Amino acid sequence: MGKRSFAIIGSGALGGLYGAMLARAGFDVHFLFHSDAEHVRQNGLQIDSKNGDFHLDSVNVYDDPEAMPACDVTILALKTTNNHLLRDLLPGPTGTGGTVLVLQNGLNVEVETAAIVGPGRVLGGCCFLCSNKVGKGHIRHLDYGRIVFGRYTPIDAPPPGIDAYTQSLADELQSAGIDAQPTPDLWQARWRKLMWNIPFNGLSVVLDASTKQLIEDEHACHLATDLMQEVANASEATGRPQPDDAIEKTIDHTRHMVPYDSSMRLDYLSGRPMEIEAILGNPIRMAAGAGLKLPKVEMLYHQLHYLQSKKNSDTPQ
Amino acid sequence: MGKRSFAIIGSGALGGLYGAMLARAGFDVHFLFHSDAEHVRQNGLQIDSKNGDFHLDSVNVYDDPEAMPACDVTILALKTTNNHLLRDLLPGPTGTGGTVLVLQNGLNVEVETAAIVGPGRVLGGCCFLCSNKVGKGHIRHLDYGRIVFGRYTPIDAPPPGIDAYTQSLADELQSAGIDAQPTPDLWQARWRKLMWNIPFNGLSVVLDASTKQLIEDEHACHLATDLMQEVANASEATGRPQPDDAIEKTIDHTRHMVPYDSSMRLDYLSGRPMEIEAILGNPIRMAAGAGLKLPKVEMLYHQLHYLQSKKNSDTPQ
Repeated sequence: MGKRSFAIIGSGALGGLYGAMLARAGFDVHFLFHSDAEHVRQNGLQIDSKNGDFHLDSVNVYDDPEAMPACDVTILALKTTNNHLLRDLLPGPTGTGGTVLVLQNGLNVEVETAAIVGPGRVLGGCCFLCSNKVGKGHIRHLDYGRIVFGRYTPIDAPPPGIDAYTQSLADELQSAGIDAQPTPDLWQARWRKLMWNIPFNGLSVVLDASTKQLIEDEHACHLATDLMQEVANASEATGRPQPDDAIEKTIDHTRHMVPYDSSMRLDYLSGRPMEIEAILGNPIRMAAGAGLKLPKVEMLYHQLHYLQSKKNSDTPQ
Repeated sequence: MGKRSFAIIGSGALGGLYGAMLARAGFDVHFLFHSDAEHVRQNGLQIDSKNGDFHLDSVNVYDDPEAMPACDVTILALKTTNNHLLRDLLPGPTGTGGTVLVLQNGLNVEVETAAIVGPGRVLGGCCFLCSNKVGKGHIRHLDYGRIVFGRYTPIDAPPPGIDAYTQSLADELQSAGIDAQPTPDLWQARWRKLMWNIPFNGLSVVLDASTKQLIEDEHACHLATDLMQEVANASEATGRPQPDDAIEKTIDHTRHMVPYDSSMRLDYLSGRPMEIEAILGNPIRMAAGAGLKLPKVEMLYHQLHYLQSKKNSDTPQ
């Protein structure tokens, strides 16, 4: 078997970086670009990375998803706020047999992809990555980079474990220098990441604060801990109990992070839509399905929606 | 019996207005001023009111509370954030027999006064008043003006009803044109007012919004309703059930209010300390004493404290 082929849907700070690493390693990679297509076709892709800078001179660039060849693996790295576009974007690159690796923020974000390509063809992953797009075809990878990924299954199904396909995909990604870790239980991993994402994405926008400001303030840190506890309770209520020390570890880890602006705050400050439904709405609804209310997460959800509406009405269209 | 004498502690937008109305009606009124003392001594007090403007030429002005005569009634109209000063402020004007009418925001704010003058000498009231201090010795009364007041008793005591003293004080205040309504149950009245104050004071600061912006947004209005429900639950848990239509009436009333900046937002924007403990902290603690958690009110409490600390650290001292 030859090397797998990859399609990258959403070639920004995340998809662009991982796609470029795969192409550098000799994989056949096809990138869907939006506004940067012509620039990248002419100038290639520039990656500035803490692991070493590199440039791809020749990139398979598409601006039409239907023109893309059917690939073995489609990496979906679009913001979830664009998921209404998936019916147009996925059929070309996924063809009739390829899988989709959903590298989107939030919970149950694979459900829309699964509805289009079929649930057996979907994997999902959480990325722990600090990376920004700093210009056309120019990505700056600042820190981290791990992907924790696994098979997507319904929440009420038992954890699927790591099958041979998932392991071989992990091996291939690792061969390209990507820190890809297969997980036997994607839901557990997604809930675990939300224990950070919900408090720190949400509060950083509502309180106009950096992660450092939040963690160093007694009241904000107390509140972040309360929110984490609600997320841990929801995870447990949906059959995925988190380790006892998960909150303590998350707080401790955050204390030692480099000063960092959450993706939601960056989106908000730039006037882009925030991923409120994926990161907060879906967890609230999954918990409600298990009979659990998350009052503080709900409050954050409504506060973020208020701020989003106000921002939309303040910003000239 | 002659007309009662009054002391006004905190002669700002609220104390200054009511004190001036009493003085205009011929009561013997003694005003404690802070920075405006000399100005008012020389120029008197100017009231611009929707009920008619008036000027007091000669005002009994004090800047030293110990120099004040013992009065029949001391109206306490200081912000609760200054309650650490009460041990110095109250003994002079209250003497050995006078009562104190505590016209401060929040819940259980009478407790500090009661500790100083004794519980049997304390009444409390909720003010429904739109009034601003617009300059030295210059107050603008924009709208409303009602005081709902009654005897202060411990929360676990039965409602005290309206005794002869309370009724006679109401009559005197009314004779000065003040819309003073005696209530048989101060706790009920204070909880009822908090159903507005907690959501609209708190959210207006955290979301940087006017009352109108909050009530007109689907998500903010939903959240305000959730917060009101928590306050109503706390009121009931402490033995003061609110009427079934209280939330609906409060929302409806707010929809028809003139655009209005809450006192907490005005404090925040001007760099003054917010009354977080009186308006949110005390209700949270009273509910906890009755075995009830108020998760969303708690969240607002922590958010406000974060913003207050940040403001303090941003503002040169």
